[in-house]
Amino acid sequence: MVTLGTSSTLCSFIGVMLPQQINFGYRGKQEVKHARCGGFQIKANVKTPNKDDNSLRVTTSSTLDDFVFRQNFTIKSYEVGANEKASIETLMNYFQDSAINHFKTFGIHRGGFGSTEEMIKRNLIWVFTHMRIETYRYPVCDEVVQVEAWMSVAGKNAVRWNWLLRDSKTYQVLSKASSGCVMMNKLTRKLSKIPEEARREFESYFVNSSRMIPEDDIKNIPKLNVITADYICTDLKPRWNDLDINLHVSNVKYIGWVLESVPESILTNHELCGMSLEYKRECGRDSKLHSLTAICGANNNNVEFYHLLQLEDRGVEILRGRTKWRPKL
Amino acid sequence: MVTLGTSSTLCSFIGVMLPQQINFGYRGKQEVKHARCGGFQIKANVKTPNKDDNSLRVTTSSTLDDFVFRQNFTIKSYEVGANEKASIETLMNYFQDSAINHFKTFGIHRGGFGSTEEMIKRNLIWVFTHMRIETYRYPVCDEVVQVEAWMSVAGKNAVRWNWLLRDSKTYQVLSKASSGCVMMNKLTRKLSKIPEEARREFESYFVNSSRMIPEDDIKNIPKLNVITADYICTDLKPRWNDLDINLHVSNVKYIGWVLESVPESILTNHELCGMSLEYKRECGRDSKLHSLTAICGANNNNVEFYHLLQLEDRGVEILRGRTKWRPKL
Repeated sequence: MVTLGTSSTLCSFIGVMLPQQINFGYRGKQEVKHARCGGFQIKANVKTPNKDDNSLRVTTSSTLDDFVFRQNFTIKSYEVGANEKASIETLMNYFQDSAINHFKTFGIHRGGFGSTEEMIKRNLIWVFTHMRIETYRYPVCDEVVQVEAWMSVAGKNAVRWNWLLRDSKTYQVLSKASSGCVMMNKLTRKLSKIPEEARREFESYFVNSSRMIPEDDIKNIPKLNVITADYICTDLKPRWNDLDINLHVSNVKYIGWVLESVPESILTNHELCGMSLEYKRECGRDSKLHSLTAICGANNNNVEFYHLLQLEDRGVEILRGRTKWRPKL
Repeated sequence: MVTLGTSSTLCSFIGVMLPQQINFGYRGKQEVKHARCGGFQIKANVKTPNKDDNSLRVTTSSTLDDFVFRQNFTIKSYEVGANEKASIETLMNYFQDSAINHFKTFGIHRGGFGSTEEMIKRNLIWVFTHMRIETYRYPVCDEVVQVEAWMSVAGKNAVRWNWLLRDSKTYQVLSKASSGCVMMNKLTRKLSKIPEEARREFESYFVNSSRMIPEDDIKNIPKLNVITADYICTDLKPRWNDLDINLHVSNVKYIGWVLESVPESILTNHELCGMSLEYKRECGRDSKLHSLTAICGANNNNVEFYHLLQLEDRGVEILRGRTKWRPKL
């Protein structure tokens, strides 16, 4: 899927002053400023997207409103990062893949990233407006995890995806996530209302219970600028392989740019435990970006940051975010 | 695994002049110059690395010397690129993963990327010296492919990996690849001889037949410079998530940098069908690189390029390569 946000979610800046300066060290070309402040319903005849892939299945539990799509993933050697654990991008990839397979399983997927027949007729694609992830434990190489995915209503012109990532043996929840999705016309690149015909294709799969992942107050993320940011990383450019099938940068790739302006000492000694991202615009092959980070709080060695990705040209906002970090064990 | 090469493989420059200028267009910040020139043995008691993962298995065919390690992969939605096909990085990830699982299956894997007990005792890790891939068809999303992997001898201080990527239904070969691996001390970052004790751990798994993937003449790749290159892309930097568990840039990530200096019109209208890479040095988090490309030949709409990745600082060589491209169907 792709990334794009609505301008209606813009918030005014809220500065948070911390009493002490915090020094996170210096990294290469990064410009470091002084630390200023501190169960949905399913149709009876579901289709399996790929009969050879045993990791995909729809399982049912004891109650009618608890039909759940589940997909197993084995963490591959190339999906772990320097800390030998699955990266945050890997988890986001799994969530996205399970959402697409969810549609395939229900037999309404016709192409692209979750496009239905009525969407394709109208050149519509799904785009994320926001994403929220909390992670309690990152799985390691060869570990088998299970993603549980379901969809819920989010007003007239949006849907919401919900995910739980579980240890496949103990069923302990390792991570939970949710995101908002709207439709965009892939020719005009403008947001679209959800046509009634398209909505009818998937609305019967909405969860109508209280089985929702609580969301963060994403609207309270301030817009950073060169004055309010503590760390700025410039000269960020999409690589050819950052593009997805919609010919713009995959929303998962934005994480890498956000991390570029996080102090090296945090990346090395801390672990990302929470992330809220609000996607504002899509980003193409020729974009050149700046990544801005500001410290918004620190408590018991836990640290929180605000983030902004913006185009170098005219400072157009691409993404606004907040991350939470805990010390590595 | 990681990347590093031997200085003994350096070659002198061989210029190839083409009769006509070739214009591949202009892309963003890329500086575009005018086109100047145009069946191994296995132990009886093999161990399965992960009993929950049915995609890993050792299968046997009818002859003793044809024991083959095979691993199935289902192409995920996040493993395809803008052209809706598996990316070259995805294939390289599969090859690498199957090599590690090969060691795991034989019960000699003790950690990292294929490290054995004797290697860990001596702080030794595997590093690639070169990689050669030919691809006949790129698989698409949801397609199940099978990687066939085996190891062969390559002199006293190197081993060679060989891979075939097959359509899991028809067994048609989609891609074939081979690479050279040597050992490096992870503390001194210097190449090491293969200790006899370590060699004994895996030499019984060498293929002793003629079942080898033919290699390209990798030594004939010239060293480009700002005069001989046709396209130069600067300001390339590793991202945090480009690092692997050996705390340097994964060799697979180098491909992205190579592609950065390939003309946009080639990336859009052609398909990479052959690639030879010679890894010269490892590359760390603080490296800043230049990617250089020169046209080395064009024939019937097929195009070949030479490539060089070098550090901005003192022009130290990181990788030398050659790619071959055919028109997209």
